[in-house]
Amino acid sequence: MNRLLFFFALFFGISLSYAQRTTTLSLTKYVNPFIGTENGGNVFLGAAVPFGMVKLGPDCGKNDNNSGYYKEGNINGFSHTHVSGTGGGAKYGNILLMPTTGKVQFENIGSLRSNEICAPGYYAVSLDRYKIKAALTATHSVGLHSYTFPAKTKGNILVDAGHFLEFGKDWGESQEFVGSEINIVSDREVSGYSRVRGGWNKGGAYTVYFHLIFDTPFDQCGTWSNGVLFDKIRTQPDVGNKTGAYFTFKPKPNNNIKVKVGISFVSTGKAKLNVEKETSGWDFNAVRKQADDSWNKQLEKIKVAGGNENHKTMLYSALYHSMLMPTNKTGENSLWKTNEPYYDDYYAIWDTYRTTHPLLTIINPAVQRDMIRSMIDIYRFDGYMPDARSGNVNGRTQGGSNCDIVIADAFVKGLKGIDYATAFKAMIKNAEVPPGGNEQKEGRGGIPDYNTLGYVSTDYERAGTRTVEYAACDYAIATLAKGLGENDLYEKYLKRSSNWKNLWRPVESFGAKGFIWPKKKNGTWDENFNTLQPGSWNDFFYESQSWELSLYVPHDPSGLIEMCGGAKAFESRLDTFFEKSKTNDRGWMDFYNVNNEPGFMTPLLYNYIGKPEKSNERIRQILDKYFSATRGGLPGNDDSGAMSSWLAFQLMGFYPVAGQDIYLITAPQFSKIAVQLEKQKTFEITAKNWSLKNIYVQSAILNGRPIYQSWFRHADIKDGGKLELVMGEKKSAWATGNPPPSM
Amino acid sequence: MNRLLFFFALFFGISLSYAQRTTTLSLTKYVNPFIGTENGGNVFLGAAVPFGMVKLGPDCGKNDNNSGYYKEGNINGFSHTHVSGTGGGAKYGNILLMPTTGKVQFENIGSLRSNEICAPGYYAVSLDRYKIKAALTATHSVGLHSYTFPAKTKGNILVDAGHFLEFGKDWGESQEFVGSEINIVSDREVSGYSRVRGGWNKGGAYTVYFHLIFDTPFDQCGTWSNGVLFDKIRTQPDVGNKTGAYFTFKPKPNNNIKVKVGISFVSTGKAKLNVEKETSGWDFNAVRKQADDSWNKQLEKIKVAGGNENHKTMLYSALYHSMLMPTNKTGENSLWKTNEPYYDDYYAIWDTYRTTHPLLTIINPAVQRDMIRSMIDIYRFDGYMPDARSGNVNGRTQGGSNCDIVIADAFVKGLKGIDYATAFKAMIKNAEVPPGGNEQKEGRGGIPDYNTLGYVSTDYERAGTRTVEYAACDYAIATLAKGLGENDLYEKYLKRSSNWKNLWRPVESFGAKGFIWPKKKNGTWDENFNTLQPGSWNDFFYESQSWELSLYVPHDPSGLIEMCGGAKAFESRLDTFFEKSKTNDRGWMDFYNVNNEPGFMTPLLYNYIGKPEKSNERIRQILDKYFSATRGGLPGNDDSGAMSSWLAFQLMGFYPVAGQDIYLITAPQFSKIAVQLEKQKTFEITAKNWSLKNIYVQSAILNGRPIYQSWFRHADIKDGGKLELVMGEKKSAWATGNPPPSM
Repeated sequence: MNRLLFFFALFFGISLSYAQRTTTLSLTKYVNPFIGTENGGNVFLGAAVPFGMVKLGPDCGKNDNNSGYYKEGNINGFSHTHVSGTGGGAKYGNILLMPTTGKVQFENIGSLRSNEICAPGYYAVSLDRYKIKAALTATHSVGLHSYTFPAKTKGNILVDAGHFLEFGKDWGESQEFVGSEINIVSDREVSGYSRVRGGWNKGGAYTVYFHLIFDTPFDQCGTWSNGVLFDKIRTQPDVGNKTGAYFTFKPKPNNNIKVKVGISFVSTGKAKLNVEKETSGWDFNAVRKQADDSWNKQLEKIKVAGGNENHKTMLYSALYHSMLMPTNKTGENSLWKTNEPYYDDYYAIWDTYRTTHPLLTIINPAVQRDMIRSMIDIYRFDGYMPDARSGNVNGRTQGGSNCDIVIADAFVKGLKGIDYATAFKAMIKNAEVPPGGNEQKEGRGGIPDYNTLGYVSTDYERAGTRTVEYAACDYAIATLAKGLGENDLYEKYLKRSSNWKNLWRPVESFGAKGFIWPKKKNGTWDENFNTLQPGSWNDFFYESQSWELSLYVPHDPSGLIEMCGGAKAFESRLDTFFEKSKTNDRGWMDFYNVNNEPGFMTPLLYNYIGKPEKSNERIRQILDKYFSATRGGLPGNDDSGAMSSWLAFQLMGFYPVAGQDIYLITAPQFSKIAVQLEKQKTFEITAKNWSLKNIYVQSAILNGRPIYQSWFRHADIKDGGKLELVMGEKKSAWATGNPPPSM
Repeated sequence: MNRLLFFFALFFGISLSYAQRTTTLSLTKYVNPFIGTENGGNVFLGAAVPFGMVKLGPDCGKNDNNSGYYKEGNINGFSHTHVSGTGGGAKYGNILLMPTTGKVQFENIGSLRSNEICAPGYYAVSLDRYKIKAALTATHSVGLHSYTFPAKTKGNILVDAGHFLEFGKDWGESQEFVGSEINIVSDREVSGYSRVRGGWNKGGAYTVYFHLIFDTPFDQCGTWSNGVLFDKIRTQPDVGNKTGAYFTFKPKPNNNIKVKVGISFVSTGKAKLNVEKETSGWDFNAVRKQADDSWNKQLEKIKVAGGNENHKTMLYSALYHSMLMPTNKTGENSLWKTNEPYYDDYYAIWDTYRTTHPLLTIINPAVQRDMIRSMIDIYRFDGYMPDARSGNVNGRTQGGSNCDIVIADAFVKGLKGIDYATAFKAMIKNAEVPPGGNEQKEGRGGIPDYNTLGYVSTDYERAGTRTVEYAACDYAIATLAKGLGENDLYEKYLKRSSNWKNLWRPVESFGAKGFIWPKKKNGTWDENFNTLQPGSWNDFFYESQSWELSLYVPHDPSGLIEMCGGAKAFESRLDTFFEKSKTNDRGWMDFYNVNNEPGFMTPLLYNYIGKPEKSNERIRQILDKYFSATRGGLPGNDDSGAMSSWLAFQLMGFYPVAGQDIYLITAPQFSKIAVQLEKQKTFEITAKNWSLKNIYVQSAILNGRPIYQSWFRHADIKDGGKLELVMGEKKSAWATGNPPPSM
């Protein structure tokens, strides 16, 4: 049996028994965690379990890397908290350990590296300066370090409670130090904390507590505070200084020291409890295997056959990167007492609502449910659901209140165990109650305008992005209102969801007519604007320009097509959009910008004019041009797995319209795909005659019945389903009619 | 030398030498901390130093007393944090110790009491149930307990980290438990924390850390968690349970156990540092003397002669009660790193801006400066200056953004060391940026209305209170604008400060015409309203009615007099207001409500129509009727010393118009008063011919020059000054002209 055939037999063989099904497959070998570490992907690199609180990895260079890692230069140590894929200023990088040799010093201790290895739940490297081999693995709340010092050499281990990532200083998005404390409690134990504020989300102070255990009693110790070393002094209370401790160890036969570091966002006592509960003994490989198993359990929810190895690597790496964040902090909430789950590091839902949450809804609905419950609980106690949240503080909102769409998505897909009535209240609050003071924190900035004028005027920043996102979010509210029998509210928000049209100006640009355009409070257009003008926080569009954002009406593509002048004009416009896409001399992509979330669905819009084969072609062009199984294989910020989950869907050949129970069909990059759903149900996609040349769908059978449309509903697959595609080399007449539903 | 003469000689004797001046007088003996413990005064009772972080006192009854203390029933223990004089739901009551005897139990341990004694910095009581004598004293951050157990009896001490005051459950203003932790670190030391949220200000979670040291090693110990006792178990990490620890002590000769409890809002390490820094050894009386000295140092800033003993007790008790809060938490800020002072427990500035802060400006300008710097720092890092703030979280705003007036008050009085430019930005933010989401948190709720319509419409709660307070606050902004040379802004806010007139409706009530009245957004009056309709959070007036609040225009009494129909009509209206004052059948005071801050200045308004003798009469009537040197001697919530500081000014016979450099003269209750200012300067008031009958000012000499007006400026006294009044039995023609300045 050749390997492919074996794979196929294993996945799709004759009615797998339960025992077989629960066998863990080794899919982690297809994960390359380095994908996205270059080219601005900013993914976390290190050891973590899915949604793990500890993300233990190297902090490199000048502490000015967004997620700690940088491909070259010094490693300054290994810290326990990171975000993944984010842009802007850094967050976390707390409680850093660094092994050294020689005279104890705690500044300028970085080392060049070699033999760097990373796999799910595992990281290893040689620190050339000290000839130390370091290996890391993790449980949910504990980092396990293994440091092998050169033979017969005294080893030092530094514990830096004052360390954090500082990237973003120049533009006010850096973290700022608040305080730290360290306490050597025995000859094997240390506890303390690091307290930091700020960072990209401009959040208030958060505290990372730790309790650390060495496997070997140290020989000597000391602490430092505010740059001064204190030999033998075992405590540095928090007086607002950066503190740390050093430990030296006598050489021993294998000269290996292991350290377990329990982390908590509640207290040092809870950090100690986390160490005790999650680890026993010192078997590094056992902990590593446990981490590997936890990833395999997630990865095996999608099984593929056919396709090339690179695509398989891209798929499983994408799944891996989609499940590093948000962080499951259930039991680690220091803000209120609750029985609800608690997730932090939504970073940002504006990024992840499009594909990350819909992916979880399919392959991990329990986690998706828990995340939504946490959002609702955050509303209950903090006042608003988050758009972004990190370090226990909401902020910053990028475009809209896109959690609205996450909730509508769960609702239309029948996700159980969610208090939708309270969620609806939280959504109405988003829509009606101005967040005030800091309008980047939560809710909807500029809604006094939006709710009276029907658009956000140029009096407010990001007026264009806000208007189109609010319209999409209003459709989500309408969706929930309808489902909950709130008919008046349904009518109200359905009407509002067309508000994007209030900024639609019939100007022409490169043959296309009609663009989202800045409008003043008095109703006149801002003449000082053009369709390719890019923007950021203080501008009309956030991370976008009008060519891109004028194609963003995910809830009403039909309405958009009509505003654009009908199907033909729309097709021509899309063609221009993709074909003129290029990086301009400011480094910004004009027209289609592959790494930008507002354009995530745009390549699929051909489906809405009966040309799914063109969506298919665009996707293939995009995958070939911008994505690969290499370190630079993501074309920009992964944004908490947003880009990765987008990639995963495109590789599987279907795409979720978030907030609606609709998936758009393009064509898979594999001949067979099995998606494990809840309750042992499976959604299978088979692509008959699949080959590198046969990229066009000729016909499709859904659950045994031929379909002549390029979409299906969540209801079609949620209790198990089968999509059988027949592929061919030439374009077909399949699905030219019956476009996907639209508003 | 009789006692009075001695007193006089001591205070006013021939040019006191420096050595004499620095001698600490024992004025604490005139303080009766029990004043205000009954009749709703809600003052803190226990041991504390001025503005101390530790306020160590008994928590009584069912933990449902606002400030912990209740005159009778059980004492449940002694906790370290309290507020003083507040209304609404309780705050604090953290880290409670209780000595017991017999079998260890940690529920239903309360004891009846006898021999209760309280003095500044000292509290003692006998716990009848256990025959234990308890005495308490405090430094700034440390509570020192002395427990004397019955002879030959084993003593228990319980340390409850889960305790807090719960008053306010029924109406949503109670505190809520978040978590706690306890850790017995040696046979004499315990550390841990209590984490609680909510309370009157509906604040987020705050954490009170402690480090406790016994003077005697305990014999046995154990902990509890979630109601279950664990003998010998020394640690209870925070898993969201209420935790505590017990300790038993073998009998010893004196059978006295002392305990020092360091408190910190930063960490257990900082709590330990606080114990070590602020205390050494176990000399209870030395610590008590130190606390007593710190109070004397404050009290001796005002020295009086003549007058009766009750008035002296009332004066010094009032000064004492005015300096329990806000809490100086400099060095205890866990939210940001700063070199600025940090004060918490502004509770609320709406109460204290009127007399408490002006009192500090005179007798403790350094503290007043530091408080203002802390408000500005809170704006820098939290976004808004507080109106109220407790447990490190802003909220709730009662009426306006009255910190604006505190800053204007400091500015016009020439207080140095304040960054007025940044303060001005913070004031402008109050006035211009809607606080959003939770409009009770900070800033000005309803300003979209106020800034467009010129009044807060009935769309918003507290529209009447807000409109009149915003007008007063706008005058404060105009004051600062003028001083900073911002002429356009001066004009803008000066104009706005007349906005109260936009709610003035020419209706009649009991012979008076013109009242602040609810107005709808469309400009029509709300007909469903009357002039005595009381209100609270959700109503038109906060803690007030229109008869009261229509007389609240502190920045423009002349404008108010004009709107009321001139001096005669105004006098008649004031007479009605005071003479019809009575408690209605709902328990609310109609017309003049002595315990309500908006009416603080109203008795003085006769000064503005040239009848200071009538202000004087009203004040005397009010003092006689509502104030005394007894437990019920304050006529309602002391509100962080607001009522007490009002009383202090009235006893001294002059009254500050907050935000303006004006003091109104009535007549002193003492024949001589010396107020110590900065730089060894003194402001002296002498009342020649003073007697109980001679209550009317006949003539006045200010700094050597006769004055014919019932007011003076801060500039007249700030570098030292002397006001010489001549008193007489009959009304005089003194100061019938030249009314105090008005807007």
